[in-house]
Amino acid sequence: MGDWLQLIQCVPNFSEGRDDETLSALAGAARSVPGVALVDFSADPDHHRSVYTLLGPPEPTLEAIKKMAYLAVERIDLAQHQGVHPRIGALDVLPFVPYGETPLDVAVQLAHAAGEWLAETLQLPVFLYEAAARSSHRVNLAAFRNMGWEKLSKLSLTGEWAPDFGPDRLHPSAGAAAVGARNPLVAFNVELATSSVEVARKVAARVREKGGGLVGVKALGLPVEGRGCVQVSLNITRPGDVPLYRVVELIRLEAARHGVSLAGSELIGAIRLEELLEVARYYLGLHGLRREQVLDLWAAALPTERSDRDGEIER
Amino acid sequence: MGDWLQLIQCVPNFSEGRDDETLSALAGAARSVPGVALVDFSADPDHHRSVYTLLGPPEPTLEAIKKMAYLAVERIDLAQHQGVHPRIGALDVLPFVPYGETPLDVAVQLAHAAGEWLAETLQLPVFLYEAAARSSHRVNLAAFRNMGWEKLSKLSLTGEWAPDFGPDRLHPSAGAAAVGARNPLVAFNVELATSSVEVARKVAARVREKGGGLVGVKALGLPVEGRGCVQVSLNITRPGDVPLYRVVELIRLEAARHGVSLAGSELIGAIRLEELLEVARYYLGLHGLRREQVLDLWAAALPTERSDRDGEIER
Repeated sequence: MGDWLQLIQCVPNFSEGRDDETLSALAGAARSVPGVALVDFSADPDHHRSVYTLLGPPEPTLEAIKKMAYLAVERIDLAQHQGVHPRIGALDVLPFVPYGETPLDVAVQLAHAAGEWLAETLQLPVFLYEAAARSSHRVNLAAFRNMGWEKLSKLSLTGEWAPDFGPDRLHPSAGAAAVGARNPLVAFNVELATSSVEVARKVAARVREKGGGLVGVKALGLPVEGRGCVQVSLNITRPGDVPLYRVVELIRLEAARHGVSLAGSELIGAIRLEELLEVARYYLGLHGLRREQVLDLWAAALPTERSDRDGEIER
Repeated sequence: MGDWLQLIQCVPNFSEGRDDETLSALAGAARSVPGVALVDFSADPDHHRSVYTLLGPPEPTLEAIKKMAYLAVERIDLAQHQGVHPRIGALDVLPFVPYGETPLDVAVQLAHAAGEWLAETLQLPVFLYEAAARSSHRVNLAAFRNMGWEKLSKLSLTGEWAPDFGPDRLHPSAGAAAVGARNPLVAFNVELATSSVEVARKVAARVREKGGGLVGVKALGLPVEGRGCVQVSLNITRPGDVPLYRVVELIRLEAARHGVSLAGSELIGAIRLEELLEVARYYLGLHGLRREQVLDLWAAALPTERSDRDGEIER
């Protein structure tokens, strides 16, 4: 954990998507630790939820997370939430993701360290999931999280429901926290030029791993509110093996069975440059394209540009 | 020129492509100035020529260029060159190119400052070209440079041949230097799956501006030695207006008239991230893709990664 060259991406989800003051305070806490970048953040008022993407060396990143968690427990009261996105806590989900050559194990260690701190300092029950899980029934977070705060708050957290760290009761206002470690994934939506959700569902069913599609791909067909089209919402969980172009072209192929074409796509959160290089290698035939050829990487590493870019995404 | 946020790309071409010691010394000189990145360099023994790509703020970049020029004059003797690439000097061509929001005018000023220094300190006649030119007959460098060192060395450099700075005779061993400023361009080759140079020439003629093709595109059809295929060699001089995908798809379209498909492509030197974003926006329909979503830019800006990446391209 002391290795200064390792980088970790951390993507905390908070059960707050409406109060600008709290959202800004969380962003400020993320930015307040030197050496940590706040890459992206977005809030969804409908789901009453926000997602922050941090990048930095393990120790400063953990420091930033502690500051954010402290604020979240202080300011977010789950008892005020009504019928929104399934959630178990104010700091609802906290995944650590290795960046670059950093091994997954570093993310696992960091998840454990964060979990312990959240339990001891903030009195939160902490549930470890995915690569950080300590028992097999916790690996898949969804089943557990879909129980939601309301149900969990009535339980004594023992036996099957015992947390990995912390008390056997939910925190009265801040609930619990799910802390995990996983490899990078790409979250990606493709819009189809049709209003038929049925078509989106069929296409999703055929491109995902379960339906005979691409390995590690999860997909759902969904309506898109107020836009008269539908989308295939995807998680690419093995982006190193499954490049974006292959996913898009396979969706194009399956949508064509229904005479439907693609209307566009969107990327949720951050992406690795390697994904973009692979897109250019495939479509342009730029077989020898290397990341060192990208001028912007060099510019970003020069001290001159850094202060500039920090300002650019201030919001 | 004192603005610390401005960045300049500089691409000096030297008349040395064979002697490893000189090539390494030039690279070392480029890297010796703090704040300047040596993005790329390549040497061509056949053409007896090397090209370095530097990126940095104006003053440190000029400092690095001075060190490289000093070495080049010391170590390169044009009298030893026989029948190779047209050239006029040891430091043959020195273009300054603005990066990011930096105005072209900063590159022009830097070209003038570099030219003055080369003349005063190294006794080189200096010819200003393109945006840095001080007379219209110097704007286009090619006509002048194709005269070559041999012819110019027999002339008195007066009247039409008078340099913009420096003496009226070539330097006995280091010749002269062409110093210019221009906007960024993309140098790009597309290979066609045929052995007919005639097809490459026809395709090149149709995609370039002169032949009714894309604005600002220059193209030549050329054989590719020892590989049984041919290439369309391109300069995209207005890359902000003419994205790579449009060039590739137009070449594909014109090559198809001859029943020929594309075999691949290659990018010479460095590229801006924006070009890659535009490729992904077009082919994947990622209309809203933003540079801030690219994690690697953030990682490069963190102090942790910088030392790592410096090591990565050492060679």
